Amino acid sequence: MIDASVLQHLAHTLEQRKGADPATSYVAKLYGKGLDAILKKLGEEATETILAAKEGDKLQIVRETADLWFHCLVMLAYLDLGPLDVLAELKRREGISGIDEKASRAPD
Amino acid sequence: MIDASVLQHLAHTLEQRKGADPATSYVAKLYGKGLDAILKKLGEEATETILAAKEGDKLQIVRETADLWFHCLVMLAYLDLGPLDVLAELKRREGISGIDEKASRAPD
Amino acid sequence: MIDASVLQHLAHTLEQRKGADPATSYVAKLYGKGLDAILKKLGEEATETILAAKEGDKLQIVRETADLWFHCLVMLAYLDLGPLDVLAELKRREGISGIDEKASRAPD
Amino acid sequence: MIDASVLQHLAHTLEQRKGADPATSYVAKLYGKGLDAILKKLGEEATETILAAKEGDKLQIVRETADLWFHCLVMLAYLDLGPLDVLAELKRREGISGIDEKASRAPD
Repeated sequence: MIDASVLQHLAHTLEQRKGADPATSYVAKLYGKGLDAILKKLGEEATETILAAKEGDKLQIVRETADLWFHCLVMLAYLDLGPLDVLAELKRREGISGIDEKASRAPD
Repeated sequence: MIDASVLQHLAHTLEQRKGADPATSYVAKLYGKGLDAILKKLGEEATETILAAKEGDKLQIVRETADLWFHCLVMLAYLDLGPLDVLAELKRREGISGIDEKASRAPD
Repeated sequence: MIDASVLQHLAHTLEQRKGADPATSYVAKLYGKGLDAILKKLGEEATETILAAKEGDKLQIVRETADLWFHCLVMLAYLDLGPLDVLAELKRREGISGIDEKASRAPD
Repeated sequence: MIDASVLQHLAHTLEQRKGADPATSYVAKLYGKGLDAILKKLGEEATETILAAKEGDKLQIVRETADLWFHCLVMLAYLDLGPLDVLAELKRREGISGIDEKASRAPD
């Protein structure tokens, strides 16, 4: 069954990559390049998600969104955070004032 | 307990917002503005996530990543997709060749 | 006649806005909010340029690109730089190895 | 002397690249990949400009802004537009209501 435990599983693996030789994995190499390189990838994947959504190819949209979330997980791991922090924040907002909580915040 | 069921719960609520009066909710208003408005928000939140990560304020990083994921969910719902599609894609990659599957794909 | 002197003219005006009351102008207000607010606008305008280009409406493409360049000028002014620095860099590359100089640099 | 004629000179060269063999130049190769590839580069360079500005290294800021403007020129050329269109739009705004014209438009 597909459920969201994959996020925690990925986070666990990303944690283990931290000590790895950059030559052995994509993620270890990205860690080695540092925060800016990770954030560039995050920006790239956001652009690609936007382009896929405009194009309307559902398979591509899912693929690019997965790339975007994956690189968010890499960024979070690099900064000693993880998906549970993000999910807790989403749950907190839902608990307080429903899905539309953002609307009640000061405009950004 | 915090787990990833919040994603599916949010997706369910986002689905229900589809028929709602734009005046009644942030999401209904965003749907009403159309795909480009949703994608602009997605791009904005990606930029804000990048800025928060550079700044290094963990609370803000989590908040902006939550905003980014939330607007991904809005985009997916608008296009009749959902978080399970993205999680299935992440799980598929993990199953095939591990977390570093992306590295083995043709460079994009 | 339309020529690129408008960039320098804008830069001059942007410089003068630096001491202005935030209540009196859009740019003075943006300066008052600080670098992150300026960079968020830059990111937003980049996304809007991309969306306009995908949409194919030429009037909108020109308008969004103008917004993007304008906010680049605001960012440059805020950091005590200006369009001549950017134009000099473009000219330097052209002088060295032609328009395709970027291709000869190490991949980023 | 450094002036903005470099933009028109670049535009002229970009126009000439249109028929070129993709193997012979960076730009011809990018044209060959199509609009999405050009827009991905535009998004990447926007992210890199933002990261450079946060980092505060002036040389890098100028370099990344030049990359961003250059890829805007490539996008414009690909769509049969050019820098004069953007400069005319900036001049038009300045003429109508000064540099802060954007503030008077409906919020986007």
